[in-house]
Order: sequence, then structure tokens, then C-alpha cells
Amino acid sequence: MRGMMTAHSFYRPLSGLDLLGRTADDPRERGRVVLESLMRIEEVESEVRAMTAVARREAAMATATAARGPLAGMPIAVKDIFDTNEFVTSYGSPIYESQQPKSDAAIVTLLRRNGAVIMGKTVTSEFAYMSPTATRNPCGLGRTAGGSSSGSAAAVAAGIVPFAIGSQTGGSTIRPASFCGVAGYKPTFGILPTVGMKCFSWSFDTIGLFAAGVRDVAYLAQILSGRQLAVERVSTSPVFGVPDSYPWTEPSANAGAVLDIAARAIEDAGGRIRRVRFAPWMADLISAHDTIQSYEAYQALGFEYDHHRADLSPKLAAFLERAAHVDTATYAKACVSMEQAKDRLSELFDGITALLTPSAPDEALDGLGSTGDPAFNRNWTLLGCPCVNVPGLWGARGGPIGVQVICRPRDDARCLDAAAFVERAITGIVGLFPQHRE
Amino acid sequence: MRGMMTAHSFYRPLSGLDLLGRTADDPRERGRVVLESLMRIEEVESEVRAMTAVARREAAMATATAARGPLAGMPIAVKDIFDTNEFVTSYGSPIYESQQPKSDAAIVTLLRRNGAVIMGKTVTSEFAYMSPTATRNPCGLGRTAGGSSSGSAAAVAAGIVPFAIGSQTGGSTIRPASFCGVAGYKPTFGILPTVGMKCFSWSFDTIGLFAAGVRDVAYLAQILSGRQLAVERVSTSPVFGVPDSYPWTEPSANAGAVLDIAARAIEDAGGRIRRVRFAPWMADLISAHDTIQSYEAYQALGFEYDHHRADLSPKLAAFLERAAHVDTATYAKACVSMEQAKDRLSELFDGITALLTPSAPDEALDGLGSTGDPAFNRNWTLLGCPCVNVPGLWGARGGPIGVQVICRPRDDARCLDAAAFVERAITGIVGLFPQHRE
Repeated sequence: MRGMMTAHSFYRPLSGLDLLGRTADDPRERGRVVLESLMRIEEVESEVRAMTAVARREAAMATATAARGPLAGMPIAVKDIFDTNEFVTSYGSPIYESQQPKSDAAIVTLLRRNGAVIMGKTVTSEFAYMSPTATRNPCGLGRTAGGSSSGSAAAVAAGIVPFAIGSQTGGSTIRPASFCGVAGYKPTFGILPTVGMKCFSWSFDTIGLFAAGVRDVAYLAQILSGRQLAVERVSTSPVFGVPDSYPWTEPSANAGAVLDIAARAIEDAGGRIRRVRFAPWMADLISAHDTIQSYEAYQALGFEYDHHRADLSPKLAAFLERAAHVDTATYAKACVSMEQAKDRLSELFDGITALLTPSAPDEALDGLGSTGDPAFNRNWTLLGCPCVNVPGLWGARGGPIGVQVICRPRDDARCLDAAAFVERAITGIVGLFPQHRE
Repeated sequence: MRGMMTAHSFYRPLSGLDLLGRTADDPRERGRVVLESLMRIEEVESEVRAMTAVARREAAMATATAARGPLAGMPIAVKDIFDTNEFVTSYGSPIYESQQPKSDAAIVTLLRRNGAVIMGKTVTSEFAYMSPTATRNPCGLGRTAGGSSSGSAAAVAAGIVPFAIGSQTGGSTIRPASFCGVAGYKPTFGILPTVGMKCFSWSFDTIGLFAAGVRDVAYLAQILSGRQLAVERVSTSPVFGVPDSYPWTEPSANAGAVLDIAARAIEDAGGRIRRVRFAPWMADLISAHDTIQSYEAYQALGFEYDHHRADLSPKLAAFLERAAHVDTATYAKACVSMEQAKDRLSELFDGITALLTPSAPDEALDGLGSTGDPAFNRNWTLLGCPCVNVPGLWGARGGPIGVQVICRPRDDARCLDAAAFVERAITGIVGLFPQHRE
């Protein structure tokens, strides 16, 4: 509705595929795209607060003009949890204030090798944990953008960049993508490199990608992973498994209603919905995620905890203090549960193309006091499953609310195809529901 | 033989367990142990060249005296592939000359949490790859100490420290341990943290531990891993599978003779030897290791390759240049081979306690032009198997030559127990074979 558009006038995602079409074979146009990105930062950054560092104009335009490759000249922002030689890298922590790494994270190298222009770094919560950030949601400045990839989600939502890199250890990509109304993709564990990313939990840390829509994010995924992931043709009759309940937390009525709308749109578009029920082992994984993440974070952030405790947020310090009591036997048992669950995953996906669940329990919370709850994401991170947040629907409180498409590990192409189906189905019904923007 | 002892008078490993006994409940004795370590460095370092950085005397002695925990006051050296806030960390590369990391690697945190005193950093080959180092073998100064953990193996062999930390991506722990006549242990993949270790290949990079003997290294492993790994009682009648041939390369006659001696010693001590044959898939893994390592290194060292190529050794630059041509499909196929092989591993260990093979194709090579061949180690690294180099036997050319005990992933306790059996069996026969030192 037009009236609502003004309420979130900072929301203006740019399709990366459209931009690539515009700049194809035109180096000067690439320079203009980068300039527009810088101008958009000028325009919105003081309100949105997505960036921690911004590229210098001359250097970025020169890089764009000279760029070659499938991302030639594309402005891309990188979460400040990844090392960059060119930009200060602080991992959201005062301990690393002004740190200038000696090298780039591997994902940054992959971006540059494919012609992307790194436009700057984006706000992360402290070490990508749960402490809130100052980033404001472009869809409603009084709300959180989610976390921990707050700045990456917001930068794409606000049209600062068509693509951004984030990460997910619990729900740090899918949740902010849902809150900010953009596509988010967490690939199968291990297919994109986390070298040079500040480690929180080596069993879970995963690269996350953000873009305006599913096709855009799938294209970026294909280029970075070297795998056939771009959406070439959308499935004709996918079967989505929709859980009849959730062992972690139930979605709000608002999120439940949006999921129902998505399900009806899927059926209208020729897809099918099948109700599925989680086996009891799915509930056990909730504590396994907590155990594994705690044990590993207490080692991975051991230096910071042992030597700079006063510079940690109270939330993280308290988490690590509890984590210190997780013993190795408990951790090893949780790892066994994780491995067994991975072996059982095929039953869960038997007869369906993908699972369809809410991306988060609700729309973005009001205020900046919390980045929200990763309950709907943690188990899929633990299982290494590819997940896509499909944007396009809006909740009763006027904010975006995504639906999550989940597949078996290594079925990333299927997952992105299925997500593209959902996105198209949703687009088909927008206008039927007054709360959804056109 | 006495005559040979003088030929390798730099060889004088110190048992960590003995030192712990000596310093128990005596903080001042801990200070003396650290002082002796510093004096040993004074004495041998100019010949052995194991260290890249050494702790300051006052600080180290104060730390030792105040130390608490199961490694209280133990001097430990850390391979210069791990970040240390206290010491310059260069990864064996001029690109990182004078780098002073902002934090410690997780393994360093674990050492400190358990009371160890970090005595300094040890020589690594450039990024732990194959370029030779200047480190000389304490058992024969004209020979290589092996690599890439050259300095860690040599520091333990020369009695600079009772314990040292290294790493293994191909054969970088087991091979130098074999060449230098000390115990080396590569744990099951993932049970010790590699956070803060310069990445070469995230599928393979593994912490390696060095100590004088198997019981010493098992104790260190128990403390760092929090798992029951210390050798409490040695198995009474283990069954060792000895391959009748090797798909990678055959051992030299020298190494073969040493393995036969070990096998006879095992039988004399009540163990059993069973001939085993590798299935054809074991041969396929050789190229899978190469493919996976190449693909990942081209990403992990992407910044260095793209921005500092002139500062790479010709050997590494050539490796990365070849690695650039490994495409994702080939990599993904190699990963599938790896996963399938892991699933098949149980057949290989059916009916045996452990495998027994040479640790390396031969004794240490003469000269410093090569760190040797990791052929006997790479597949076990790929499979994530625990491996122990058992020292104690010497080859026809007068240098140490170890035997390797290998178990299924997660059978680390069994592996260390079996290795302790072999070590004791070998000790029982020393004196029967004139080439073995007393």
C-alpha cells in the first residue's frame, strides 16, 4: 500500500542481476553504479547505521571501471567479522578497535577474483554473538535489523549495495534477512570458505549471502562457490513440507499467518503442501547446538575472555562464563547427537522437495535492545542444511516477515530453485493481502 | 653404540612426565626447569636452529613459578604457524615478517590455561608447506629435521622443551617426529582447535603434538583435549595390522627392516601381527588429498598469492599456480571420495587394534634441501585418523626411524595405548640390534 511505502522509505533493495544487466560491457556504467552506492550511503547511512567502514571513492571507481569477471563492478559490502587488509576490522568489539589485518578473508579474495568492488564493512554484533547493534531496520527505523549480520541485511535492504556477505552460527543470516525483507542464503556447511572469519564455533560458522531476491542471491552463490546454483528454471511442482509444530518455540500468530499465506500462494502456483512432523531427535538438537557452540566459543574466544574480559559485553561475558563449565564429555556427546541427526536427515526430507517454515518467530522487534531469537535457525545450522529466506510478505505490524526454505545438505541448487518458486508464488498474490506492499 | 652417541650429541629429549614429577608441588623447581630450557637454547640453538622467538627469562620464570594446573611450569614451544600475542608470528613467510598478532591461537590459550609456559616459537616451513627450513636434525646436524613442523620436532629432540605443538596437513607431524627420534601424535581431526592457526587446508589442518615418548605425548593430549588419553595401562595383546604393500610408495629397505624389527619386538612382547591388504579405494585417496589440499590452499592463501606472489617461495607459488586450475566439480568429487572412504574405514580396522606402518619412507635425508616425503601420512590425515610416531629404533644410516600406529577416528585412546605397547616392546629389544642406540 502506498501509505506504508513512506513509512519505510529507506527500504529500496537493488537487484544485482538488474545491475549486472545495466553494466554489461560498459566499464563506465560500472563506475556510475559504484558512485550511486556511495551516494546512497551518504543519503541513508546516518539513519540506518549499516556500515563500519566505506571505500574511498576514487579507488572504488577505478576498481569498478577496470573490473572483469561475473561480478564485474558490483558493489558488495562485507560483514566486519571478516578480515580485510584494506579496511579496519574490529569484529564488533573494542578489543579489536583500529585493527588492520595483514590479509583478506578467503571470501573477500573470492569476491575480488570475480570482479566485485568491496564497498566497505558492515556492522556485526560483537564477535557475531547476540549483543544488540546500533543498526536500524530500513523497513522501520525504530526496529532492529536483526543480527548478528545486522549491517549486511540493512545495507542490502536500503539499497546501499545489491549484495552483501554475512555469516551464520545460529540464525545470523536468515533472521536479519527476514526482518529486513531481503533474500538471505546460508549454504551447506563448508562449501564457502570461512578462512579469515573470526571464529565463534568451528562446527557451525557458515558464510551467509544477502541480495534483493532469491535469483540474485543464487547468482552470487554460484559465482562464489563455483557450483551450478543460479536459478535457471524454477521447479514446476515442488512439494513443501510444513511442520505441524516446532519443538523450539511456536511462531507468533503473525508469522503463522504469513506462513499460511505463503502456503496458499504455493498451492495456487501449482506447488503442493504436505504436513510433516518432526521426530523427537529434532528437539534434542536444541541443547546440542547450545553445548557445541558454548564449548567451542570458550576456546575460540579464549584469548579475549582470559585477557580482555572487561572489554566484553556483559551478555557475551556471561555466556562464556557459563560456557567454561561445559566439559569435554558433554561436548563429545553433543557432537555424536549431531552426527546421528545428520545421518537421519534423509527421513525428514523423504517425499518432499524442501521444508517450509517461518524464518523467525515474528517480524523485527521494536527498538534496538535485542536482535531477536534464532530459534527457527539453529537446528538447521547445526545440521549444515542450506536455508533461504524468501522475502516478499509483510506482517500485521507493517514489517517484512520471511519464510524459510530448507533442504538436505548439498541440495543447495534444489533449495534455491524451491525458494525461487516460493518467491514467484508470493509475487503472484501480492495485492490480495492489504498488508503486503506492492 | 657409544661411538654413535657422540655423532648425535645434540639429541637429548626430556620426558615431560619426569619433569612434572620433579617439579610437583615445588614452584621454585618450576623456575629452574624454565631456566634450564633457556640454557639449553643458549647451548644448542645456534647449531639446531629450531626457534624463531624465545621468551624473556624473567617473564618466563615468573610465569613458571606462579603456574598452576596439570602442565604447571612446563616449558612448551609452539610452531610459528599459530598466532601468539606475545611473540612475532610469521608463518615462515617474509610476507608476515614482524607480525604481532592481536590474539593467541586457541591451542595457546589451552596451554596457558593448564599452566604451561610458552618458551617461544619454532621454525615452520613457509605456511607449513614443503619448502625446506634451516632447522638441523639434532640426531645428525647434516640432515633435515623434516617438516613442516621442523622446529617443534627438533626442539623436543634436542631437549630444549619436553613438549611442543606442531601441525599436520599432509605429514608435518609424524614425519619430523620420525626423523628426529621423538614421539609425535596427530589426533583425530577436530578434537583440538585450529582457531588462530594459519590455514592451508581446512579439511586437513590438524594440531600435532611432540614429546620425548608416547606416554609423555599422551599425557599432553589428555590435558589439552580434556579426554581420557593418558596411557594408564598398556594393552596386553594388541593385534597390529601390517600392510603387505602400499599404494603410495614402498618404504626403503632400511625403513622396511626397521618395521620388521618392530613387528618381531611386538610379537616377543605378546602382541600379534596380522598382514592386511589395502582395498583399491585407498589408492584413490592419494589424488583426493592432492585435489582437496590444492583447491582449499588456493582459497586459503588467496590473498598472499594474489597480492604478494613475489614473496612466495618458487615451490609454493608453483603449487598454487597448479592449484588454481582445480575446479569445483573435481574438488566436490574428491570430497565425496573422502566421505565414502571414511564410511568404509571400519572394514580396514576389522579384527585389528591398530595399523602399523613406517612413519616415513626412510630416515631423514642428508642435507637441508628437502623436508622429505609425506606419502605415508597423507591418507591418514585425509581420513582424520589418529596417528602416533613411535620412536626408539634407528636405521642403517645411523638416524632414528619411527613406526606409525594408526587407528580409526575417535579411537585416540586405543591408538596411544597401542603405541605405548610398541614403544615398550621396542625398548625391550634395544641392544639386540647394533644399530640401535642404548
